[in-house]
Amino acid sequence: MATRGGVSPLVIKRLPRYYRFLENLSKKNINRISSGELAIRMGLTASQIRQDLNCFGGFGQQGFGYNVEELKNSIAGILGLNKSRKTVLVGAGNLGRAIATHFDFGKFGFKIIGVFDKKESLAGQIINDMPVRHTVGLENFCRDNKPTAAILCIPENEAEEISELLINLGIKGFWNFSHYDIAINHKDIAVENVHLSDSIMTLSYNLNEIE
Amino acid sequence: MATRGGVSPLVIKRLPRYYRFLENLSKKNINRISSGELAIRMGLTASQIRQDLNCFGGFGQQGFGYNVEELKNSIAGILGLNKSRKTVLVGAGNLGRAIATHFDFGKFGFKIIGVFDKKESLAGQIINDMPVRHTVGLENFCRDNKPTAAILCIPENEAEEISELLINLGIKGFWNFSHYDIAINHKDIAVENVHLSDSIMTLSYNLNEIE
Repeated sequence: MATRGGVSPLVIKRLPRYYRFLENLSKKNINRISSGELAIRMGLTASQIRQDLNCFGGFGQQGFGYNVEELKNSIAGILGLNKSRKTVLVGAGNLGRAIATHFDFGKFGFKIIGVFDKKESLAGQIINDMPVRHTVGLENFCRDNKPTAAILCIPENEAEEISELLINLGIKGFWNFSHYDIAINHKDIAVENVHLSDSIMTLSYNLNEIE
Repeated sequence: MATRGGVSPLVIKRLPRYYRFLENLSKKNINRISSGELAIRMGLTASQIRQDLNCFGGFGQQGFGYNVEELKNSIAGILGLNKSRKTVLVGAGNLGRAIATHFDFGKFGFKIIGVFDKKESLAGQIINDMPVRHTVGLENFCRDNKPTAAILCIPENEAEEISELLINLGIKGFWNFSHYDIAINHKDIAVENVHLSDSIMTLSYNLNEIE
């Protein structure tokens, strides 16, 4: 497979969508699909799909289309979904709890090994078969268990201190639901921000325009 | 205030961030701020801030900066956060439940008036002081109560039918956590998609690159 250096962020952004579509095809027992058919389903053009997949070395055979299972597995590999990164969840309020129970993290290359919250009253509660631990134990836990990823479901004003601590303890990637901008001081860390409130405010704006 | 037609989507995308920053300032009892100070806090330039806000008629007074509370309230108005749109939540699984309990919808211009799920076993459970209703009652409920917004926390394969039904019943805006692309057939409807699984797959990809 070709090296991935220099692959456009736009192509990378489309990879999860390819993966989702291929997964749906696979569930429907569709074994083979042409770039033309895939294009129609995804609202793209066939040539865009061929170009995108060529960035990763190309798949499929002229005139035979793509083998769905093979392509799905290749994209899973490129996305790193076959990993099992030790992950800590910090913040076990409603959102943290929902994220922990709603998501099949294993499917996406992550494995939650510890759940933390600074609220004494949550300590010992069980989320996904794990006890909620007090944040004071986070440092020792990380030294002992060496997680490499973290999910932050904490308020913005707590996120700076916690993210600095976690980066010092070896965390390389954050799924960040707080509004704190981790990447601003850490260009070498992988950060995905989920700004739910920005999203609903944008919906509100757009509704306002048509109401 | 100037009309908003033709405001760049990039400016609109920044409005929720302005609102969040101003809200934080307001909480810290900071009453006045210059575009320069606000720029530093937001990682923007002062001239970009002035340009952005000029799209909406301009705020602040040369040499005096912005009145934080006034600007916050003006942006809230532009974003439509002062509305109280009747909203139905469809899908009361872990995610729907979390969204319903985690979010202060009132703050963002929405008011959940009904929660629906097709699972019989959830019917009657209480979420945010509201009983979960069976989806069979959705149509009558909408005719009686006339909601204008909906939150979809249902799987992709259920979202097409439900969204078509809701649009026919007068829903004008969706906060969409399913992967179904509502906008593809409905350009006149406001849709905000939250693709949580795409976000974590992107994190996985970026982690893979540095691991």
